[in-house]
Amino acid sequence: MTTAAENDILTRVGPGTPMGELMRRYWIPGLQSSELKSDGDPVRFRLLGEDLIAFRDTSGRIGVMDHRCPHRCASLFFGRNEEGGIRCVYHGWKFDVDGNCLDMANVPPHQDFKHKVHAKTYKSAERAGLVWVYMGDQANVPELPPIETSLLPAEIVSTQMHLRNCNWLQALEGELDTSHVGLLHYGSVGVQNFQADGIRKYSVTSRAPEYMSTETDAGFMYGAYRPADEGNRYWRVAHFLFPFWAMPPINAIEINFLARAYVPIDDEHTMSTYIILKGTEPTRREATGRNIPGATLDLDYLPNSTDWLGRFRLATDASNDYRIDREKQRTNSYTGINGITLQDHAITESMGAITDRTFEHLAPSDATINRVRRLLIKAASDLAKTGKAPKSATDPQVYDGLRGGQFVAPESQDWLEAWRENLAKTPLSSAPALAQAAE
Amino acid sequence: MTTAAENDILTRVGPGTPMGELMRRYWIPGLQSSELKSDGDPVRFRLLGEDLIAFRDTSGRIGVMDHRCPHRCASLFFGRNEEGGIRCVYHGWKFDVDGNCLDMANVPPHQDFKHKVHAKTYKSAERAGLVWVYMGDQANVPELPPIETSLLPAEIVSTQMHLRNCNWLQALEGELDTSHVGLLHYGSVGVQNFQADGIRKYSVTSRAPEYMSTETDAGFMYGAYRPADEGNRYWRVAHFLFPFWAMPPINAIEINFLARAYVPIDDEHTMSTYIILKGTEPTRREATGRNIPGATLDLDYLPNSTDWLGRFRLATDASNDYRIDREKQRTNSYTGINGITLQDHAITESMGAITDRTFEHLAPSDATINRVRRLLIKAASDLAKTGKAPKSATDPQVYDGLRGGQFVAPESQDWLEAWRENLAKTPLSSAPALAQAAE
Amino acid sequence: MTTAAENDILTRVGPGTPMGELMRRYWIPGLQSSELKSDGDPVRFRLLGEDLIAFRDTSGRIGVMDHRCPHRCASLFFGRNEEGGIRCVYHGWKFDVDGNCLDMANVPPHQDFKHKVHAKTYKSAERAGLVWVYMGDQANVPELPPIETSLLPAEIVSTQMHLRNCNWLQALEGELDTSHVGLLHYGSVGVQNFQADGIRKYSVTSRAPEYMSTETDAGFMYGAYRPADEGNRYWRVAHFLFPFWAMPPINAIEINFLARAYVPIDDEHTMSTYIILKGTEPTRREATGRNIPGATLDLDYLPNSTDWLGRFRLATDASNDYRIDREKQRTNSYTGINGITLQDHAITESMGAITDRTFEHLAPSDATINRVRRLLIKAASDLAKTGKAPKSATDPQVYDGLRGGQFVAPESQDWLEAWRENLAKTPLSSAPALAQAAE
Repeated sequence: MTTAAENDILTRVGPGTPMGELMRRYWIPGLQSSELKSDGDPVRFRLLGEDLIAFRDTSGRIGVMDHRCPHRCASLFFGRNEEGGIRCVYHGWKFDVDGNCLDMANVPPHQDFKHKVHAKTYKSAERAGLVWVYMGDQANVPELPPIETSLLPAEIVSTQMHLRNCNWLQALEGELDTSHVGLLHYGSVGVQNFQADGIRKYSVTSRAPEYMSTETDAGFMYGAYRPADEGNRYWRVAHFLFPFWAMPPINAIEINFLARAYVPIDDEHTMSTYIILKGTEPTRREATGRNIPGATLDLDYLPNSTDWLGRFRLATDASNDYRIDREKQRTNSYTGINGITLQDHAITESMGAITDRTFEHLAPSDATINRVRRLLIKAASDLAKTGKAPKSATDPQVYDGLRGGQFVAPESQDWLEAWRENLAKTPLSSAPALAQAAE
Repeated sequence: MTTAAENDILTRVGPGTPMGELMRRYWIPGLQSSELKSDGDPVRFRLLGEDLIAFRDTSGRIGVMDHRCPHRCASLFFGRNEEGGIRCVYHGWKFDVDGNCLDMANVPPHQDFKHKVHAKTYKSAERAGLVWVYMGDQANVPELPPIETSLLPAEIVSTQMHLRNCNWLQALEGELDTSHVGLLHYGSVGVQNFQADGIRKYSVTSRAPEYMSTETDAGFMYGAYRPADEGNRYWRVAHFLFPFWAMPPINAIEINFLARAYVPIDDEHTMSTYIILKGTEPTRREATGRNIPGATLDLDYLPNSTDWLGRFRLATDASNDYRIDREKQRTNSYTGINGITLQDHAITESMGAITDRTFEHLAPSDATINRVRRLLIKAASDLAKTGKAPKSATDPQVYDGLRGGQFVAPESQDWLEAWRENLAKTPLSSAPALAQAAE
Repeated sequence: MTTAAENDILTRVGPGTPMGELMRRYWIPGLQSSELKSDGDPVRFRLLGEDLIAFRDTSGRIGVMDHRCPHRCASLFFGRNEEGGIRCVYHGWKFDVDGNCLDMANVPPHQDFKHKVHAKTYKSAERAGLVWVYMGDQANVPELPPIETSLLPAEIVSTQMHLRNCNWLQALEGELDTSHVGLLHYGSVGVQNFQADGIRKYSVTSRAPEYMSTETDAGFMYGAYRPADEGNRYWRVAHFLFPFWAMPPINAIEINFLARAYVPIDDEHTMSTYIILKGTEPTRREATGRNIPGATLDLDYLPNSTDWLGRFRLATDASNDYRIDREKQRTNSYTGINGITLQDHAITESMGAITDRTFEHLAPSDATINRVRRLLIKAASDLAKTGKAPKSATDPQVYDGLRGGQFVAPESQDWLEAWRENLAKTPLSSAPALAQAAE
């Protein structure tokens, strides 16, 4: 049982909240690198409930800061991104990407106090085509986490963002719950549709898997197993990584170079952020013409706008009931909603902006969800009480070498041994070749 | 005087509020039967601040339940209404109309615990073309109240619903206030317009009636009287019935087979729900060509949508000032607003979502309104304190044989005697013939 | 530093708040006279968080009152403005502009109690084409303040209203901050653009002025000075007048017949209300063809609507980022936003509905802003504690003879002496001739 108080701890991410402070101990992917051009328009965005802007300066450096000018709180979104910094257009104060005040245009030289004023900036970095932001203590910034796919050259990595209109945790929990795959996504689809789809067919052969799981230094991992061909088991292994990452088993483990972040925009909005090796995206499988109802990923985005919540919104959403087709629902799909991503959006948003977990009745299939909640509550509470963050916050190396994915292994083999064995077949160094092969 | 605290008691209807708990001791008409088709789309709706769905199963039975699946709170609105129940599309749990869990698709048989999980359902029934819902103790459900018109065969009864964008009580109070009829509805209309309209003309001859009233086991009744032809009085008798019903005197009592419920959708929205014998609707009188400005009922509905507040909305509303015609207001109407129903909507919505009754100055004409408030506050408070509900909640027979209506009686006759005498002229059994005559 | 508690005092204006009560001791311009026609439609509007209506009766008198009928709170916006008063269309109660109940149509004569019921009205007056409202003690109403330009005949005065979507104080503070003129409005404009523009050119020659200031009986005045031609200073003198007035130096003092009120509609909306001598409007200077980028005033209004916030809204607003032109921002303007008024709207609205002043870092250039905050906090707190209002509330004569404006004076001359000397060149009596000359 999750109590109302625990639900609050889990879901509130603003400054000063236990979970918000925990999140601020980790690097957060906040934008796509391509959103920022040198001396181009500043971008409005929100992270953990804070209204920010980002801009790329003349030399290509990125500034991420509170959108308010520290002088009189005019928004720097309307600022001029000019030679080496952003200038507030109200009184001409200018700041570089580190928040240093470079000019105080309306103050006579003898009264100038620019060395005393700093914009409220956050350190940023670029990796895997994303802009990462660190919102904790700026004097004490950890290394970026070596999340496997994020280490690949940006050219062979694909990133996707979708705004999800609900709290981050209910978005993340969809990734910790492999049993919904055979139901939400393929509920009314006969196994014959998957005959040509390799080992994935077993997720429909049996829709009620069993589980093994274990904590890791980076978070938690579990394997869901179902019967495969004689003497073997079909495994789906997934990771939860602090504070909001998942590595779901959407592909065979050999090619499953993938990480997904459920970044809290605020308490009621989440940017789901996917990093995936090019050529292994589910759309590719779809493009092969295999008949997998509901597997299309043709998402319809609204044009990005400059609203705080204006980036990467889907056009098919709650306001149009996700364009549910009730006739299709009755016949050849389970949901009548088109595509796995939309199905995930629909079902998690339908729980309400912040779902009331006291109403739940968790099943054995929810063991991972429950364990991860306990880990999150403990980490947030410990931090609030003792100031001590989890190992993953201070030693990013714990993320090294983790991957999720599907494989088949003998019933007799230990699941972690089988996982490591299958993982070893394709180290990270093999990814570029895989991407090339896919072209 | 109604205090702020009393106003809160009167107007708040969510779970756990005194008035909300009182309302939950009564059957509530929530939908039109025609909204639900066997194995058809579930309907989203709200009652007393609770978000619900309704569906009709394969055998025609109706399920009304919290819209959230008891497993993980995904909305059953997106569920599949399939053979004998509704299936949540997230993990395939299936529930029948009584909330029994029929299947737990993602849980292996040896871990199944479906006998321990129930959807949060409410008992329902159909009568007079409406789906009635009982939201109180499901182990202790009273009989449906024998409200006269609701006992007629559905074929000869007409039901109408309109969403009113204000609290239920200010909507209801319009029905307990006969004096507004000659003003809001016919304020600037000369009596000559009503010469051919039978006894109704007296409501314009004199616009300041006097009153008699009495409590009943079902609630409260009053008679407003005005002078009629020599030695006679023109009576308009109306009932308030617990908890939100009115029987207003819109017709001569012999044909006034009518009941109106002001069903709280939530604190700020009300579904006005009319049950009326076919052939006696005001539109009929209008169709005869009599020149009664403001009496038209040609309501313009927006198409129903699947929003929580998407059913039976009027297109003419506060957003367009009810299409008030100021020139018409100056000349041949009192309001410049077209039609009695719209006039009622406009004036009660204009008081604010929940009107502040501490600002009022009640007049003798408001005696009924004040008495009904006292009855409601007492009933809600007694229930909260002692657990005892009014007689009308436990003995629905008290509703039997009540009707409102207009009649003329000698000044010397006792009003209740006159009411009973006029009522007796057309027992319920005569209604079918009246409906037929109207065709 | 302004604390959060001080910010609350400064910004909250509803009934019972310290600043709201202070504001209620002053006459407030609320509407344009031209909005009200005899026996015409009532106008919905809001002042200091109160929802009001105004109407002009048959004899031309203006009524301003709480929009709710004192009987049952139906909105008098839907009332009939008829012979000598406004009639609520619910039950026909009728009120004159002083709130006297003239008729109680639904109450029999022997029960009538109209002498006991009053509509909640506020005294009003007309001057300078505006309707002024006094919302304090109606038994104790001061004289209208003799604000210079407001004393001129309405025919030679121009009034403008614009709805600003932010708190009144951040709107006003723009007027107490002359240093933004050379930046927000002319930031990237070379001084050569102003060569033909008289002494105004000096506001761009030097963008970091210094200041002199002093309290006045009516509020506060300051002079910002910059170097002019040899031995001289260019002065911009401005006034703050209790409670929300400014006299900014937009013109040479000889013609600067101008006052601006930042009238709080509610905590998050302000009606900026300009009174200016015809012929001296900035648009005129623009019309001369001088090349002053950003100085156009071609505001695009939305059509007035009957919403509470429906009057004098700009079509170019936050929802479209004030139609910022980033290319223009980079090249020949500072903001890329078209026109001084829009620039002011954009920058003050961008601070948030009620800006968080604890985030600020005030500069020497903000000394006036800070001083005026202190005066306002002291006046509001004193009134709350002792019931004593500032002199300006009880003795309106203190407003007499004040004007802001630009002038050039020798470095050696005392600034107040120079101000008085320049002011004396054109007394109020010279204004009509100035207006005529401009035609």
